[in-house]
Amino acid sequence: MPDAVDLIRAKRDGRELTAAQISWLIAGYMAGGVPDEQMSALLMAICFRGLGVAELRSWTAAMISSGERLDLSGVPAPTVDKHSTGGVGDKVSLILAPLVASCGAAVPHLAGRGLGHTGGTLDKLEAIPGWRAQLTAAQLMEVLASTGCVICAAGAGLAPADRRLYALRDVTGTVESIPLIASSIISKKIAEGTSALVLDVKVGSGAFLRDIGDARRLAQIMVALGGEHDVRTTALLTRADIPLGRAVGNALEVQEAVATLHGAGPADLAEVTLALATEMLRLAGITADPAAALGDGRALERYRSMIIAQGGDPDAPLPAAAHTDLVTAPASGWLRALDARAVGVAAWRLGAGRARKEDPVSPGAGVICLAKPGERVERGQPVVELRSDEQPRFARAREALRHAFEIGPRPPADGPPVLERVGR
Amino acid sequence: MPDAVDLIRAKRDGRELTAAQISWLIAGYMAGGVPDEQMSALLMAICFRGLGVAELRSWTAAMISSGERLDLSGVPAPTVDKHSTGGVGDKVSLILAPLVASCGAAVPHLAGRGLGHTGGTLDKLEAIPGWRAQLTAAQLMEVLASTGCVICAAGAGLAPADRRLYALRDVTGTVESIPLIASSIISKKIAEGTSALVLDVKVGSGAFLRDIGDARRLAQIMVALGGEHDVRTTALLTRADIPLGRAVGNALEVQEAVATLHGAGPADLAEVTLALATEMLRLAGITADPAAALGDGRALERYRSMIIAQGGDPDAPLPAAAHTDLVTAPASGWLRALDARAVGVAAWRLGAGRARKEDPVSPGAGVICLAKPGERVERGQPVVELRSDEQPRFARAREALRHAFEIGPRPPADGPPVLERVGR
Repeated sequence: MPDAVDLIRAKRDGRELTAAQISWLIAGYMAGGVPDEQMSALLMAICFRGLGVAELRSWTAAMISSGERLDLSGVPAPTVDKHSTGGVGDKVSLILAPLVASCGAAVPHLAGRGLGHTGGTLDKLEAIPGWRAQLTAAQLMEVLASTGCVICAAGAGLAPADRRLYALRDVTGTVESIPLIASSIISKKIAEGTSALVLDVKVGSGAFLRDIGDARRLAQIMVALGGEHDVRTTALLTRADIPLGRAVGNALEVQEAVATLHGAGPADLAEVTLALATEMLRLAGITADPAAALGDGRALERYRSMIIAQGGDPDAPLPAAAHTDLVTAPASGWLRALDARAVGVAAWRLGAGRARKEDPVSPGAGVICLAKPGERVERGQPVVELRSDEQPRFARAREALRHAFEIGPRPPADGPPVLERVGR
Repeated sequence: MPDAVDLIRAKRDGRELTAAQISWLIAGYMAGGVPDEQMSALLMAICFRGLGVAELRSWTAAMISSGERLDLSGVPAPTVDKHSTGGVGDKVSLILAPLVASCGAAVPHLAGRGLGHTGGTLDKLEAIPGWRAQLTAAQLMEVLASTGCVICAAGAGLAPADRRLYALRDVTGTVESIPLIASSIISKKIAEGTSALVLDVKVGSGAFLRDIGDARRLAQIMVALGGEHDVRTTALLTRADIPLGRAVGNALEVQEAVATLHGAGPADLAEVTLALATEMLRLAGITADPAAALGDGRALERYRSMIIAQGGDPDAPLPAAAHTDLVTAPASGWLRALDARAVGVAAWRLGAGRARKEDPVSPGAGVICLAKPGERVERGQPVVELRSDEQPRFARAREALRHAFEIGPRPPADGPPVLERVGR
């Protein structure tokens, strides 16, 4: 029988672990024989040493086989999903799932909640009165069959080892490891049972990866891992140095997603959504024009059906925060930058996000970017609107935004929101 | 209030922790607010990043202030102690403490037990019928006052944070970090209250450091740390590629120590002991000739008083193992090497050491090196004698020794057992 200390030391000293050793470690962790303190030491060693190709494959396989795998073989349409590594104002899933479904694919989107300054898709949708994130496997299949898409919480039976390891990484400073991030994402998506997967890897201040080289490496690793499990996988690298769209916060983002489904959303949000939709449809082998589906109301119709199927009322008024505050431009000129991370932190401090997993979120709280980079502003003009249920929160949110703007005499260089594509 | 995750991430990313942060972490660990899994992740990050000079000072101070510090100010003689980083056959303390005491210094030697292939001083002395390792602080002072030396277990109140951290490091693959080893050793010795300290840093296959550069670095760090706490500290680097003396195992080592106190011990053991004694007396400001004290029976007399004061009978027969086995020379020639680690592992497998802290040790088990490097051997001549209470243990002990010998046509180069001195 292997000894956990020997395996930790091996990894610490840069030696590769075998498939059998990794499988023993993960099974032992789940069974209690390998305690948290040994696993966290191993995770920290992995932060420094990385995981080799074979190790990463074994680690991911161990995550998947720690639980069940959804069987979507009965779904008649080709299944395809998307995963985003998390950005500020990223409400893409709300539009994308019904959009791609309206073009003929089936989208089983198991989503998460927000932690820290990036929001979670489930938190956003829960702003809709009546909407339920928790579905049984049977309910999930029913919604997917009837509307072609479903967005819900992953059941506890999918990759439970990843769930426990993620919670451990979160409290031990071992989240930021590219191979661990890759195996966490891919194991959950493979357990979800999708046949194809498009990854939206965010790059910039609002994302956890700021360097395009790191983002490319993560994308390449995930594309390879997906392929090894017979899930056709590609990735887009997208900009996250500024918020996506204008709204940041749960109900505010639902509102903006619905506006986009009505054809009246911000250009960058529509552009990223359509690029991802095009990629998903290509992998699903479907020839369709997602722009047309977004333009003629088919995607909106699917969205409404999906919300209703999960108990939500798409016509009910969304919760609004009790108080509003405005941040004005300190000078006149071109808005050249609006730091995504600062905006995310401000929204978080206003109540839109949570500091601990068990905290509630305020559905109405958040930030609206009244101006975005590339627009002219005049000194004293409101550039950001803050929303909160608690007035005392405004001061700390403003503080987060203190260095968030850059205003200059010339407009910024215009960069497209989609930076690169990885995969075949 | 600091956040443990932020501090772990800071260390992981190579940033320095402040004194306040380190003190908060250690206090939080002892109080339960910082759990084992966070501390083990931090320890692993320290294995990779090391500790800066200021960090190491703070870490050591936090270990010391986690408990009490013995007050030896009432001892009329200058206090001085020795610490060895652990080698195979290292029974030096048994001879050195009474020897230095017989020259006029006071030696308060708090010692440990063995784990793995290196033995522990307390295990060795416990082979003596009646001898007690556990003394109260009052008993310790009494033995020290009456005989000038005491060798006993460190009370639970001395550097308790180090005790808990050491147990955690042991199960999380984080033992092998030079700054953590340095702070562990020095914090215990400072809490012990000695005014001066000589470190015996072992180098070679039988020690945990095989590289003289690492040993020198550890010695320099410890000498500096001792000085910062007003403990005059120097270090000798000594050879541990071959066993020290000929006996390895608890009662066998007591026997060899007593023989050395009678002036009939192996030359290398006497040489290392006298070098350490000279260094200790110099730091204590005492002019005396330890070789004379060893030669005329004064040291032996102190040894007997100390054993008696702690309940032991120095004249009682020592426990002997029930079975003996011999390993013979596979060829004729000069014995050029006898791997200390292999001999230590053999003794351990024969029952002299423990695999887990709670295991008992066999007092009579061990290895006697009938030949040492630099001696001629004939094919078939016994070179190692094995002793065990359980015959089935011999096979695995022999296996450990399979590649332990090197026999060749020429004698090995003669190296002195003391390699280097560090400190002023």
